[in-house]
Amino acid sequence: MSVPRAFIFDVFGTMVDWRESVAREAARAFSAKAITTDPYAFADFWRGRYDPAMERIRSGGRGYVQLDDLHRENLDETLAHFKLEPFFNEQERDTLNTAWEKLDPWPDVVDGLHALKAKAIIAPCSNGSIALMTRLAKYGGLPWDCILGAEIAQNYKPEPVVYHACCNALRLQPNEVMMVAAHNNDLHAAQACGLQTAFIARPIERGPGQTIDLAPNGDWDRVIDRISDLAH
Amino acid sequence: MSVPRAFIFDVFGTMVDWRESVAREAARAFSAKAITTDPYAFADFWRGRYDPAMERIRSGGRGYVQLDDLHRENLDETLAHFKLEPFFNEQERDTLNTAWEKLDPWPDVVDGLHALKAKAIIAPCSNGSIALMTRLAKYGGLPWDCILGAEIAQNYKPEPVVYHACCNALRLQPNEVMMVAAHNNDLHAAQACGLQTAFIARPIERGPGQTIDLAPNGDWDRVIDRISDLAH
Repeated sequence: MSVPRAFIFDVFGTMVDWRESVAREAARAFSAKAITTDPYAFADFWRGRYDPAMERIRSGGRGYVQLDDLHRENLDETLAHFKLEPFFNEQERDTLNTAWEKLDPWPDVVDGLHALKAKAIIAPCSNGSIALMTRLAKYGGLPWDCILGAEIAQNYKPEPVVYHACCNALRLQPNEVMMVAAHNNDLHAAQACGLQTAFIARPIERGPGQTIDLAPNGDWDRVIDRISDLAH
Repeated sequence: MSVPRAFIFDVFGTMVDWRESVAREAARAFSAKAITTDPYAFADFWRGRYDPAMERIRSGGRGYVQLDDLHRENLDETLAHFKLEPFFNEQERDTLNTAWEKLDPWPDVVDGLHALKAKAIIAPCSNGSIALMTRLAKYGGLPWDCILGAEIAQNYKPEPVVYHACCNALRLQPNEVMMVAAHNNDLHAAQACGLQTAFIARPIERGPGQTIDLAPNGDWDRVIDRISDLAH
């Protein structure tokens, strides 16, 4: 294994705590309207619509749409599920949708990225759009060198084209790039494309009852405890 | 005019001194081989092949190719012009081509971008590739929030699709974005797309005998003396 010239990262769950952050933003919106819906249940349902929405695009049933738009559509479904449609007009829904731009990084992330940035190229390889990843980076202080991922490939992970597009955009061979994720399926897909792989467990990403991705389940090049481990 | 939510920048000439830097890298390569060719004439000829190479792509005669590859092809032509082909093998040409990744920022650029980054999104809208802009940013310490420009549009400025692609990638309307350049033609194209515009003179970009772009020649929203002026 050679030293990677670039590290690309899954973001939702791997770098930022989407569940706690979305629940917080939902709770704020609910509080202003005296809504008693459990904000964690709301966040979980909203996130639950994520993969099916992307699957329509991955399967060719729909052209590429930025994740911001999928989140916004999924928000409508989520509000309907919880019978909250009457409480939110279009503008308020647009505002609530920006919850995905205000996701707190896990405690090891910002320092770890700064350490790694001195040694290699660092970039997200997320299903989030360029706009979403840019705003999330400004919110959380993530010092990316560039924004890669779904939008430059016009498709969604784990489609191989996304990993290949990231390598091509950096003019690097797949084996010169390491994919870092808290999700084994993301690493299986990256490894099949020839990338190096690193797993980091985020055991409460999905809440206290999380049952998947608690441990590595593949032959990953590295299993790390914190992002700064990649700099050593 | 509203306050821009994002500033996008031309890079070669506007943010970095390509001529002095490429001449320096050429001089280093020449010195090792006792070549007496004027490195400034070499840099100027190499840069002179830039626009014609892009024009083939803009006109539809060739699909999108990253600028790194155009630079590399143009290097071959430049070496031929100066009868230097025998002195450089393929690997040495690849190395010399990385001169474009080592361009010094003008003195006001790094501080100015840091000041502006606290207030708005900042990104290159260059004809350079994502790879080239990423490596150039690491070399010069340019704190971009993301890398926009030709590659995400798969075409070259001043084609309108490039400016529109940058706005779309940020999910902003053109009038929420300001294009910053030392080249009037770049600003004319951006303005025609509805973007705000800012001109900054770089009167020695093309050397001491520069005759164009010494002053603004359009109705630009701002004419600035240094990048930090945009933060005020």
